[in-house]
Amino acid sequence: MGERLIVIGADAAGMSAASQARKRRDKRDLEILAFERSAHTSYSACGIPYWIGGLVEEQDDLIARTAEQHRERDIDVRTGHTVTGIDVRNRTVTVREPYGDESTHAFDQLMIATGGQPERPDWPGIDAKGVHGVQTLDDGEAVSASIRKRTAKRAVVIGGGYIGVEMAEALIRHDLEVTLIERGDQPMHTLDEDMGALVADALRGYQVDVRTGVTVQGIETRDGWAKAVTTSDGTFDADVVVLGLGTRPSVQLAQDAGLPIGPSHGIVTDRRMRIPGHEGFWAAGDCVEVLHRVTGRSAAIPLGTHANKQGRVAGINIGGGYATFPGVVGTAVSKVCDLEIARTGLQEKEAEAAGFAYETATIVSNTVAGYYPDAAKVTVKLIAEKGSGRLLGGQIVGGAGGAKRIDVLAVAIWNQMTVDEMTGLDLGYAPPFSPVWDPVLVAARAASDALRR
Amino acid sequence: MGERLIVIGADAAGMSAASQARKRRDKRDLEILAFERSAHTSYSACGIPYWIGGLVEEQDDLIARTAEQHRERDIDVRTGHTVTGIDVRNRTVTVREPYGDESTHAFDQLMIATGGQPERPDWPGIDAKGVHGVQTLDDGEAVSASIRKRTAKRAVVIGGGYIGVEMAEALIRHDLEVTLIERGDQPMHTLDEDMGALVADALRGYQVDVRTGVTVQGIETRDGWAKAVTTSDGTFDADVVVLGLGTRPSVQLAQDAGLPIGPSHGIVTDRRMRIPGHEGFWAAGDCVEVLHRVTGRSAAIPLGTHANKQGRVAGINIGGGYATFPGVVGTAVSKVCDLEIARTGLQEKEAEAAGFAYETATIVSNTVAGYYPDAAKVTVKLIAEKGSGRLLGGQIVGGAGGAKRIDVLAVAIWNQMTVDEMTGLDLGYAPPFSPVWDPVLVAARAASDALRR
Repeated sequence: MGERLIVIGADAAGMSAASQARKRRDKRDLEILAFERSAHTSYSACGIPYWIGGLVEEQDDLIARTAEQHRERDIDVRTGHTVTGIDVRNRTVTVREPYGDESTHAFDQLMIATGGQPERPDWPGIDAKGVHGVQTLDDGEAVSASIRKRTAKRAVVIGGGYIGVEMAEALIRHDLEVTLIERGDQPMHTLDEDMGALVADALRGYQVDVRTGVTVQGIETRDGWAKAVTTSDGTFDADVVVLGLGTRPSVQLAQDAGLPIGPSHGIVTDRRMRIPGHEGFWAAGDCVEVLHRVTGRSAAIPLGTHANKQGRVAGINIGGGYATFPGVVGTAVSKVCDLEIARTGLQEKEAEAAGFAYETATIVSNTVAGYYPDAAKVTVKLIAEKGSGRLLGGQIVGGAGGAKRIDVLAVAIWNQMTVDEMTGLDLGYAPPFSPVWDPVLVAARAASDALRR
Repeated sequence: MGERLIVIGADAAGMSAASQARKRRDKRDLEILAFERSAHTSYSACGIPYWIGGLVEEQDDLIARTAEQHRERDIDVRTGHTVTGIDVRNRTVTVREPYGDESTHAFDQLMIATGGQPERPDWPGIDAKGVHGVQTLDDGEAVSASIRKRTAKRAVVIGGGYIGVEMAEALIRHDLEVTLIERGDQPMHTLDEDMGALVADALRGYQVDVRTGVTVQGIETRDGWAKAVTTSDGTFDADVVVLGLGTRPSVQLAQDAGLPIGPSHGIVTDRRMRIPGHEGFWAAGDCVEVLHRVTGRSAAIPLGTHANKQGRVAGINIGGGYATFPGVVGTAVSKVCDLEIARTGLQEKEAEAAGFAYETATIVSNTVAGYYPDAAKVTVKLIAEKGSGRLLGGQIVGGAGGAKRIDVLAVAIWNQMTVDEMTGLDLGYAPPFSPVWDPVLVAARAASDALRR
């Protein structure tokens, strides 16, 4: 007799797992049932700011595969279904159905892909209309509606991380006056402050009013709508308020069920994405924590590409194959208008926290040959371990073509290369693509020199 | 008493060496004298097609540092001086000066940076006016003059390699009708034929008349000017003929002096760029052969970025420091109009020649998220060794943002990664930069699957 796989959460991780399991086991061997709280499956949350900004025309463009398409492949996806409990011993889940009915479903294999939940402080007024997170397609629809209100002129973005700067661009595209409020000393706190300052400068160049070192006290409302954001730096009028405060792993269900939660507050899995000590229990995506290959510790890094990879690994294993998720090195890229932003490995404070002694080197170069049209400035910062000379981290801020160079650094870190060895790397050179010394190589030379001093 | 360094050839390799040596040793300790045959120093030969095409406005833009600027840094550069002989035993060079005088100069250290020389078959008519190589700034000036002739309407490019396709673009920019003649089955013979075919298709889309499998018989002339190119496929009218037949190491001087020439027809050096058995003799740039890290054999690969790296290594060593050139993995990028082209490692025929058994995988993906504006198609081909699963080579042909992904493959090859391990690489993802699975990862998955079959 066949088994039943229940998937909780029908987005990147859950559906990657379901697809891979289905590829390897047919429906007589494995029934696949997926419960999704929202109305949508397999969509690109990372694309929402671009949809709001008008660069992506249709909401449907963000949906990789609909529930119907999954069902055609014998994956029974039920949207509007919220899993409310997991009974580990009896191997069942309790589900609240769209009209409020409760049902219970038995499983042999359980895939937990509950994702992340946005931070949402209990500020006064936070539940007012016009205050939005940017996590789901419904959020995106709601932000767009608030922007389209004829009277909307001013927007306040709270939080200067990836979502914050991407939403700043989206709001600029709608000609709103944008204020960005950041608690720390610079936006983009996943970069070091000297690199974050470059982002702040660029944002100001785009007419964003960047306020750093500012804490939010609450949101003033009128007739149930947001009207202003009150802060330690004064009050900022706002017709639209966007929250970009980051997310944390959504683990309540797993925790209530007694499944292991790790030091990074994510569900613990082994490299095959199995939950240790619980045969047939799997987890993947923003709800888990994984190995950070540089620190050797766990990290919870919410990112679609990790969710897809982890889901695929879980699905291959559920399907009877063998695959492992090898961990992350902390790579991320983003942009705001013409400015590209990237990082990988450890930033200075992470390196310190992990106990590394290090040197840094920062260089300014061009994205392409200086004499070639549209050559743009790019700043590259490297962090290298004293003694070993190993690259620990890298950050890039600059014009078009700058950010994806982070991949070279990510692969170098992956392979524990020293900055000295990196100076010899055979990277692609032609004037439309790079100066004769690629900025990454210039930075490696500078870091190598810094270690010798 | 101080030493004297003589440098033969004042371009990328020679001047990188001179600069690095000067940084470490002052003029009392090391006199530096550089002889350059042409009128120019330290220019970007790779930029010449873009200058001809009008993307780079001034010839001066291509000159990184003039002879005067070098002299200000106590590097005595003498342009218009041709070294005609090296006396290894007496440690002197013979020089023909601009007005024909001969002089002899003693050295303690000799840096040979004689570069490459373009292939130039002895076809009838090849010396006609309007027939041009594209190696020096003077060549560039001459091609531009031929194009500007009011009557110039048709151009024939002979050779479909990097210079050939880049010059095709330059000539299109001047509204000439362009025929490209290639001896092989596809242009870009540094790619496999299936990938070269994509380049041929694109060229035809740009209205270039691509003729493959065609051999040139000669050039018809009238009044001393080129008039047509006669080939095995008929006669092609031509007001301008561009030769893009590749270059070989320029080693006559070294060979006549009894210095070692290797199997790839370049000067032999050790990893510090010393000529073995000849204390104080150095060589770098297009005239040398170096270690190919995948085959483990020597290779002569003319490329500005290698010349700069090798020159820097030689200069550090001449200056009393320690540096080595670690070899190459065969990375190259180019473009023609909107099409980007890249390769690294070994192509199929090179893998075969080196004795590797391999599988290949080719995938088509997008440069950025499919729903993001200007997403373009990109084709990635990987070659992986049977048994070990190690990546041997990669090729990329596609739209903007495709080609520089070759660097990820280059670093992976450098570190002897398997395609299976590559599937887990933590590459930068955000919709404006990549699909959620980067094309490189999709290709790695396909190659990994191919090896399992």
